[in-house]
Amino acid sequence: MKIKEIPENTLHRLSIYLNVLEDLERKKVDAISSEDLARRCGVNSAQLRKDLSFVGNLGTKGVGYHIRSLKFSLKTFLGRAQEWNLILGGLSPLGIFLLENKELQKEGFYFMAAFDHREENIGKIYNGVSVYNLDQLSYVFKAIRVDIGVITAEENPEVYLNAFIEQGLKAILNLSKVPLFPKDNSVKVENFTFSMGLTKLSYFLTR
Amino acid sequence: MKIKEIPENTLHRLSIYLNVLEDLERKKVDAISSEDLARRCGVNSAQLRKDLSFVGNLGTKGVGYHIRSLKFSLKTFLGRAQEWNLILGGLSPLGIFLLENKELQKEGFYFMAAFDHREENIGKIYNGVSVYNLDQLSYVFKAIRVDIGVITAEENPEVYLNAFIEQGLKAILNLSKVPLFPKDNSVKVENFTFSMGLTKLSYFLTR
Repeated sequence: MKIKEIPENTLHRLSIYLNVLEDLERKKVDAISSEDLARRCGVNSAQLRKDLSFVGNLGTKGVGYHIRSLKFSLKTFLGRAQEWNLILGGLSPLGIFLLENKELQKEGFYFMAAFDHREENIGKIYNGVSVYNLDQLSYVFKAIRVDIGVITAEENPEVYLNAFIEQGLKAILNLSKVPLFPKDNSVKVENFTFSMGLTKLSYFLTR
Repeated sequence: MKIKEIPENTLHRLSIYLNVLEDLERKKVDAISSEDLARRCGVNSAQLRKDLSFVGNLGTKGVGYHIRSLKFSLKTFLGRAQEWNLILGGLSPLGIFLLENKELQKEGFYFMAAFDHREENIGKIYNGVSVYNLDQLSYVFKAIRVDIGVITAEENPEVYLNAFIEQGLKAILNLSKVPLFPKDNSVKVENFTFSMGLTKLSYFLTR
């Protein structure tokens, strides 16, 4: 049961904590002190404890956190205890890379279909995922449950955004080079490009 | 001349403004009102003006912003008016994708060398970039200027982080699934994975 909406920066840190915990689990670590976990997550232990209080896992005095139990709490809180169905918009090299790579599947994110507007790409299959014409979007939405749209178009990514929103999609990861912001507040778009990450570093280096 | 350090969230928004301005320039737009630019950037115009005051471009009353001029101010401010030399750590599928893809080059980020620890990968060449053994890192640092390290290793990414920092590298984009935080505060690490972006959306969908 969630009492209030958590701030964007807290959500960002929680997703980092989850990745660190998954790494510790792979390394067969059972338990960790809040100080040690905080250090690995780039925060102080007061911040860590405050953030984890949203999740409802308070750890055990003198022991700290049990990795598996905290990971499970976090996964459930973040909606990662279930599987999600994805569609892809725009068959760019990055789009093909994401379809062919199995890392996202391992984390519970499954591409169900891909869409493009260029006739020569329609009907291609990547790792079992078929490429459809964007015109066929409503047909696919009727046939399967779609949770998240991933936009990788190199040109006019807003065409995919608008088409996805028109079908009722509420969550979109936009990896195209044009940041997109929906007019409709009930739709959430996460914008990321590699060059955005690199720009933060180039600013840091020129300070 | 920069007077004070800007907050992380402001830096994030400035990198978004730059990408939106580059898109407007491709679309041959000359000038834009602060209201219209703010809307395209997902902020209100007061926020936009406040953020751009850091950059020192205040626009023109009645006209708004000239796209090319504002883009130039922002690029300079963010350290993107110059070219940067990158090295890659860990020859994963994502690493190979980044070496082969030319998008980052177009934005002024050039991979100069790649490093791996598996003997079978050493000596391979991707898009003109050679793969070296991590042991040869100091040799490469002596031969060329290196600005930013990009970590794409699927296992033990901290080995690349530590080796890069030991050679004096101050800026690192970590795309591996393990978030990394350097002990040394003078080193800046940006952590990103596709699943971090998707996790924010899965949280949103389960609220």
